[in-house]
Amino acid sequence: MPVTGEVVAIGDELLSGDVIDTNSSHVSRELFSIGIEVKYRQVVGDDIDSIKKALDLAAERSQVCVVCGGLGPTEDDMTTKAAAESLGVDLQLDEGVLASLKERFEKLGIAWTESNVKQAMFPVGSEILPNKWGSAAGFMIKNGSSYQFFLPGVPAELEKMMANVVIPRIIKYFGRGETFLKRSLKFFGVTESKLNTLLADLSWSSDSYRISSLPHFPEVEIKIIAWGGSPEEVERILNNVENMIRERAGSYIYGTDSQTLEERVGALLRERKMTLAVAESCTGGLIGDMITKVPGSSDYFERGLVTYSNRAKIELLGVPEEVLRRHGAVSESTARAMAKGVRERSRTSIGLATTGIAGPTGGSPEKPVGTVFIAVTDGDKTICKRYQFGGDRLRIKALTASVALENLRRFLLSQEMIEYWGK
Amino acid sequence: MPVTGEVVAIGDELLSGDVIDTNSSHVSRELFSIGIEVKYRQVVGDDIDSIKKALDLAAERSQVCVVCGGLGPTEDDMTTKAAAESLGVDLQLDEGVLASLKERFEKLGIAWTESNVKQAMFPVGSEILPNKWGSAAGFMIKNGSSYQFFLPGVPAELEKMMANVVIPRIIKYFGRGETFLKRSLKFFGVTESKLNTLLADLSWSSDSYRISSLPHFPEVEIKIIAWGGSPEEVERILNNVENMIRERAGSYIYGTDSQTLEERVGALLRERKMTLAVAESCTGGLIGDMITKVPGSSDYFERGLVTYSNRAKIELLGVPEEVLRRHGAVSESTARAMAKGVRERSRTSIGLATTGIAGPTGGSPEKPVGTVFIAVTDGDKTICKRYQFGGDRLRIKALTASVALENLRRFLLSQEMIEYWGK
Repeated sequence: MPVTGEVVAIGDELLSGDVIDTNSSHVSRELFSIGIEVKYRQVVGDDIDSIKKALDLAAERSQVCVVCGGLGPTEDDMTTKAAAESLGVDLQLDEGVLASLKERFEKLGIAWTESNVKQAMFPVGSEILPNKWGSAAGFMIKNGSSYQFFLPGVPAELEKMMANVVIPRIIKYFGRGETFLKRSLKFFGVTESKLNTLLADLSWSSDSYRISSLPHFPEVEIKIIAWGGSPEEVERILNNVENMIRERAGSYIYGTDSQTLEERVGALLRERKMTLAVAESCTGGLIGDMITKVPGSSDYFERGLVTYSNRAKIELLGVPEEVLRRHGAVSESTARAMAKGVRERSRTSIGLATTGIAGPTGGSPEKPVGTVFIAVTDGDKTICKRYQFGGDRLRIKALTASVALENLRRFLLSQEMIEYWGK
Repeated sequence: MPVTGEVVAIGDELLSGDVIDTNSSHVSRELFSIGIEVKYRQVVGDDIDSIKKALDLAAERSQVCVVCGGLGPTEDDMTTKAAAESLGVDLQLDEGVLASLKERFEKLGIAWTESNVKQAMFPVGSEILPNKWGSAAGFMIKNGSSYQFFLPGVPAELEKMMANVVIPRIIKYFGRGETFLKRSLKFFGVTESKLNTLLADLSWSSDSYRISSLPHFPEVEIKIIAWGGSPEEVERILNNVENMIRERAGSYIYGTDSQTLEERVGALLRERKMTLAVAESCTGGLIGDMITKVPGSSDYFERGLVTYSNRAKIELLGVPEEVLRRHGAVSESTARAMAKGVRERSRTSIGLATTGIAGPTGGSPEKPVGTVFIAVTDGDKTICKRYQFGGDRLRIKALTASVALENLRRFLLSQEMIEYWGK
C-alpha cells in the first residue's frame, strides 16, 4: 500500500521570496526515490501557531512528513517548541547532544552562550537524528499517523541528513530491510523519454529496489535505490540493476554517482597522462570555466584561447585567412583548423575547438542561429561535427560547451561523436 | 492597514520536486515591493479537489492571492475549473480570447484543435488578464475576501504578467492611483546591511512610493516602486527617490533596471569605441563567458587567453620567466605583466588580467587560498589590486570574475578599484 509523504518548509525568508525553497524539492525527490509520493507541501513563516497547525494537519493526513528549518539557536527558530505543542509534550534536555554541541563550539573557537542550550532540547519521546555536518541535531517524532522528521534548513546539512539519516530509517520503519544503498548513472545525449523507452522492459520497482529518472538538462540521471539484509546482498542487487540498465542504454552513460562531465573528462586525461588545450569561439570561455571548476585541473588543462575575432583565430591559432574567407568563421574547416592550431601551438596531447552562431543575430539561411561546429584532434586524427541547437544565446552556449566536453570524452574512448538528441 | 498576501502554486512537477518552485518566490518579492506581505504559501498537485480547497482557504484569510500554473490546454490543467467551483459559478467562453488564440496558433503554424477552446473558458464574472507573452491568458476573480489572480506557470510569462498586469491592478484596487512605475538601482561592492545603514535616514515607504532591497550576492538591488495620478508625477517621484539614494550611496551603483555588470561594461566600451582582451588564470574562462553572454559583444571583445600554465603565461603573454620565478604566478608583478601582455599582443585598447589561488590546495601562509590579483591597463596606466576572498573554489572564481568586471568599469570611469566588502 502506498505511503503518503508531506513536506513542511519553515522560514520567513521563504515566504518573503528572499530565499527560494529548494529543500522541499530535494526532500520530494529523495522520498520519491524510495517510492513515497509527496502529496502535500506547506510553506510557513517563523510563527509558532502556523507551524503547530501545519504539523497537526500533516499528522492527520500523511505517514511520512519531513519538516525543514527553524532548528537554530535564535528566538525566531521555534520549530522544536511547535513540535512539542503539536504532540502535547514538554521539552527535555539531551545531555549527549549538549556535550557534543559544547565540544563543537570549542573546536570552532566560538564562545558558548546559554542560548545555545536550546539546540539540545527536544520533545519528550523523540528520537535524536544526529547531524555530523552542522550544529543543529534533528529529531523524529511519531505524531498521529505520521513519522515526522525535523531537519535543519541549511541545504548542505539537510541533503546529507536526508540521504544518511532519514531515508535509511524510513526504509527500516516500513519493513524494507536493514541495509540501504543507492547508485546514480549519469546519461548524456539522450532525452528522458527515449531513455524511458529503452528501459521500458525493465521492472522499475520491486520489493528490493526502485529505479527513478531525474532530468537535469542536458543530462539525465537514473537513480537506483536498493535495500535488504546485508551490504553484500544489497550491493549485488545494485550491480544487477546497473548491468540491466547498461545492457539497454550503456552507450549514453558517462559516469556514476556525483561525477560531473568535466570531472569525468579530467579523470580520463589524468589517467592517460594527457594534456588539453581549448580554442573557443561561440562558447566564449565557458568550456575553460567548466574544466577549471575541477580542483587539480591545472594538471591537464594547459590553456584556453577565446578567439572571438577572426584576427585572434589567425594570430593565435594559425587558421589560414583563406579558410576564413572561403568558408567563414563558422565552418567545419575553421573548426578543424582551430583544434589543430591550438594543439600544435600549445604542444598538448589534445586540441578541442568550438565555433558557432550563438545569436540572436548573425544567422543566415545556410547557417541559422544555433549552427555550431565542434572539433577534437590528437594530431593523428581530427574529428569534427556540425550541430543545430535551438534556444536563446545562453542555451546555445551552454549546449555547445557540454556537447564539446562529451565529444572529448568519447574521443578519448575512441567512440563516435554524439548525434544531437534535443529539439 | 496592511494587506495580506498568499501564493498558491499548482503542479505535480512541483510536489514531486522535479521542478523547483521559483514562481512563488518571485510573486512574494513582487508583492512585497508594493508593501504586501505574503503570509501563506500553498503548493498543490494537479488535483481539482486540492486546488479548490486551497482557493477556498485563501478566500477566507487573504486579501490578495496569486495562483500560479494549471492554465494549459491538457487534461491535467484544471485550475480554471477549480476556480469556478470555488466561486460556485459556471465557465463561459470569451470570444475575444478565442479569436486571439486562433490567431496566435496560425501565426506559429500550429494546427488548431478543439481541446484548445479550454483556454478561452473562464469563470463567469472574472476579469481577463491579457497575456502578450504566451498563449494562456490569466484571469482575476473576487473570491470571498480576496482578489485572486490566476497566472500561467511558465516563469517568463508569469514574471511579465506580475509586473505589467497584476501589480498595476493591485495598486489601483487598493487606492494607490492610476499610474505605477518602478526602477531598480544595481549596487556592487557593498553589503546589503551597509547599504541599509547608508540609507537609514531615508523614508523607505510613503503614500506614494516604497523602497525595498534585494540581495543577489555579490550584488544588491534597490527597487523603487512609485504610484500616483499621472506618469509625469510618478516619474518625478521616482527621480526624487533615486536622487536621494544616489546622494547617499551613489558610488556603489553600476547600473539601473535589468542591466547586468557585463552589459554595463560592454556599453561603456562600445560608447568609447574601445576593445578588450582578457588574460585569465584562476577564473579559467569565466570572465570571457560572462562578457560573451551579451549579444553583440564581438564588437568590443577581441579575445581571451586562459593562461592556466606558466608556459602559457610566458608564450602567450610574454610574462618574463624571471617574474614568475621571483614573485610566483600569483603575484602583483605577474598580474600586471599579464594585463600588459594581453593588451599589447592583442592590440586592444584595454587589457584585463586575473591570477589567484582558487583552492582547495595551492595555498601558503603568505598567499592563502583565496588570494587574487586583478590588473587593468590601457597602456598608459596599469592598476593592480590584491584581494583575499573567502569560500570554496567556485565562489572564489565567481567573485574574482565579478570584481574584475567591476574594476574594469571603474577603470573606464577613472575611479578607484574597489575594496573588498565581504567576509
